Amino acid sequence: MSKNNCSDCTCRLANEVGQLKAIVNAQSRTLAKLVRQMKEGCKKDEEAKESTLCGLNPCLKCLQPDILYHLGLNTDTTDFPKVFGDVRFVCMGGTPGRMENFAYYVMQEIGLKINAATKLRNISEAGQRFSLFKVGPVLCASHGMGCPSISILLHELIKMMYHAKCKDPVFIRIGTSGGIGVEPGTVIISSEAIDARLNPAHEILVHGVSVQHASQLDESLADEIKMCHDPCKDTYEAVIGRTLCAHDFYEGQSRLDGAFCEYTPEMKKTYLEQLQSQDVKNIEMESLAFAALTSRANIRGAVVCVAILNRLNGDQIKTPHDVLSKWEKRPQELVARYIRKVLYYNEDDDESEQPEDETEGGAAGAGDTQKAPAAEAE
Amino acid sequence: MSKNNCSDCTCRLANEVGQLKAIVNAQSRTLAKLVRQMKEGCKKDEEAKESTLCGLNPCLKCLQPDILYHLGLNTDTTDFPKVFGDVRFVCMGGTPGRMENFAYYVMQEIGLKINAATKLRNISEAGQRFSLFKVGPVLCASHGMGCPSISILLHELIKMMYHAKCKDPVFIRIGTSGGIGVEPGTVIISSEAIDARLNPAHEILVHGVSVQHASQLDESLADEIKMCHDPCKDTYEAVIGRTLCAHDFYEGQSRLDGAFCEYTPEMKKTYLEQLQSQDVKNIEMESLAFAALTSRANIRGAVVCVAILNRLNGDQIKTPHDVLSKWEKRPQELVARYIRKVLYYNEDDDESEQPEDETEGGAAGAGDTQKAPAAEAE
Repeated sequence: MSKNNCSDCTCRLANEVGQLKAIVNAQSRTLAKLVRQMKEGCKKDEEAKESTLCGLNPCLKCLQPDILYHLGLNTDTTDFPKVFGDVRFVCMGGTPGRMENFAYYVMQEIGLKINAATKLRNISEAGQRFSLFKVGPVLCASHGMGCPSISILLHELIKMMYHAKCKDPVFIRIGTSGGIGVEPGTVIISSEAIDARLNPAHEILVHGVSVQHASQLDESLADEIKMCHDPCKDTYEAVIGRTLCAHDFYEGQSRLDGAFCEYTPEMKKTYLEQLQSQDVKNIEMESLAFAALTSRANIRGAVVCVAILNRLNGDQIKTPHDVLSKWEKRPQELVARYIRKVLYYNEDDDESEQPEDETEGGAAGAGDTQKAPAAEAE
Repeated sequence: MSKNNCSDCTCRLANEVGQLKAIVNAQSRTLAKLVRQMKEGCKKDEEAKESTLCGLNPCLKCLQPDILYHLGLNTDTTDFPKVFGDVRFVCMGGTPGRMENFAYYVMQEIGLKINAATKLRNISEAGQRFSLFKVGPVLCASHGMGCPSISILLHELIKMMYHAKCKDPVFIRIGTSGGIGVEPGTVIISSEAIDARLNPAHEILVHGVSVQHASQLDESLADEIKMCHDPCKDTYEAVIGRTLCAHDFYEGQSRLDGAFCEYTPEMKKTYLEQLQSQDVKNIEMESLAFAALTSRANIRGAVVCVAILNRLNGDQIKTPHDVLSKWEKRPQELVARYIRKVLYYNEDDDESEQPEDETEGGAAGAGDTQKAPAAEAE
């Protein structure tokens, strides 16, 4: 494992320099934009804006309203472009609680504030299925367990992006997983999602007939997130590797501790070692549907999971709750750094929306229609 | 649809007579038991008690402790026989809120009371995945969406029944579904669960190899629940029929309103009509795993769902929230009546535990170990 080989003092100074540079860059861009707007008379250049998603259902434009049943939202009662039009990052994870915590964490990390008298609201409460929080350009959703569950969420979030006319949203799944031959606590960024037969494809049955969709993830996005890991500062490793997506937690992952187990410990060992020899670094339960649905819509997607155990050493998760909580924050840290970097350090992109632009419209919250509190830029 | 053709007065009197008979029967059994216990010197006859489940993982007895990770329970910190040993009915449904409401509803229906200063506690809160409430002999759990999610719950609940040495527990899924050729609001009790290819089997991949498990449900249980429907009183229909279990909500169910749709409305119509001709009455997303896992363990299982729309007439769920809430209670009503009937009217079974026997041990709650409130018999 990497050790901290810088002095605390140097690290702190380097951090401060980084943060100051980010602020200077952001201010420069805001100044340039204000000057340009004054020159051009603040003319709107976004009237013809459409979402960048492609390959979608051609019937979507005819749905008036479109009811996103499980999200408890519909296009008649919510002004999607106004409420969700500024979304650039959609982060999802298994449990409602973890995603609520992540929403507050990312808010702090990207320098947004919320009025002290308010709190973030679960925008999907009416749907009773998922939790959904909005922090400026970041949407945080819980997806439940398994491909069918995340598939429902993704269909509805992709429709949301379409109706809201979002441009180039990045989707990231933040999760936990069983590691294969890695130290517990290691963060694994998926190079691709494969099924239990090691095929990089998500199978769905349409009219009873098997249809396969490629489950490739965005390689450059995986690299960018990997680069947010700081081997000098972080006390854990981050690796890129293949992720096996199982359809169940016990027999599909060759566990010996399920209610049923019709194989021997030796057969389990052989299977897991075979996975390891194929560069499989972890096993989870949602990446196939995530990868297939995002790539079908031309959305850049990444899966970032922490390994909460090394499956070569056992099946039961015996790590104390406080250690698990610490580990669960690692993928969140990397993803929050990535978002921060894109928002503040991307010098090529001087047209990009900055959090500073959002104070007027209250866009950092969920907008007026949702009556959600506005998170304000620092 | 059936109409109420009895006068209110006759119905009320008939109800009162039924309730009084139930109380008299229950009191007779309790008296007989007390007399027997006094004669026999209260000797314990349950020392050799084991669960009636079969076909389970032979390694289970070696797991010390067994950690039910997603339920947030383990055999070291919870005395399973004491806390869960009296469970006779395990009811599950999609959302945490619905199952909490069901727990309070069933408590009232089977004549249990909770101390006014307490409320039911989600026993699985620590697991952060499912909600789990215990009301006397009834366990109420949420299962999320899709077979992978309910499969995790079932593995852990079946292990719980095994460790708690439960006898002949009955598992019932209470849910919502899309109807095929039935009036919205109709309750459908599944005769069997079939996959999208119309096979009555649940496929899992073990070590990358397909394994099929029969997804038969208990026919007599379905009949018993159907008999709890009162065509004279209930303003809705209840039917028995085949249930198709899809692995996704949109393309797998031939919806035209998903983010992706690569078929025409005509192809959809042909497919749904073909399902109707095969006696498929509804489509949902959990019955295959439910049927396969319960039958593998020798557990009697039933799936009771309300149709919230007729898929032959559309895809989007436009019914107002208050109507949906009313419909969602219908499967709950039938199942609560079934439980009540088994507990109070089963005259052959004079050995069966009655709620009256439970006041001493606080077994109607979750027991001392869980520090849950005790629900008391009336």
